[in-house]
Amino acid sequence: MTALAQTPAAGYYAVIFTSTRTAGDQGYGEMAARMAELAAQQPGYLGAESARDDGLGITVSYWESEAAIAAWKRNAEHLVAQAKGHSTWYQHFQLRVAKVERSYGK
Amino acid sequence: MTALAQTPAAGYYAVIFTSTRTAGDQGYGEMAARMAELAAQQPGYLGAESARDDGLGITVSYWESEAAIAAWKRNAEHLVAQAKGHSTWYQHFQLRVAKVERSYGK
Repeated sequence: MTALAQTPAAGYYAVIFTSTRTAGDQGYGEMAARMAELAAQQPGYLGAESARDDGLGITVSYWESEAAIAAWKRNAEHLVAQAKGHSTWYQHFQLRVAKVERSYGK
Repeated sequence: MTALAQTPAAGYYAVIFTSTRTAGDQGYGEMAARMAELAAQQPGYLGAESARDDGLGITVSYWESEAAIAAWKRNAEHLVAQAKGHSTWYQHFQLRVAKVERSYGK
């Protein structure tokens, strides 16, 4: 992704997912692309930004509500990916749910 | 940075800074390293994670309070970097201040 996400002024949610990977692809690249595509189809999805370098990956996705985040977490295909991420793809990860209070930019 | 930030359970703040760069370094790399070093010395700083690829950069820094974020924004050396970022280094950027409500990981 090379364009910044276009989001409302405030009051929405950010899911900050940071991770370090295990060695080798093991199907990760294909899954990541599929999950990005599938997330974008969910109700309440507002956008996402993703970058990885030097072993550290950051994906921030934006959502209208906590309910939208919870529904995406329960998505059947996403549940399979989460399990594989936990068991195989990620050495470490941290997922933070945060409410956006203000923003600015150019 | 290759290690994930170690942060408290919840109730702290995340500053999500996403950007696309202009062409050329123009002193950016040196400034970015200095700002990371300087931020880590500020009261209320809890950690940071940063990644850039394919033109999109994401830096998430974590802070104890809104007051700590406001004080860092007013830091004299940081003000110079912010001005240069706005005028020269960033094609587009978005800064979001968000309150972390929950987190989990491995």
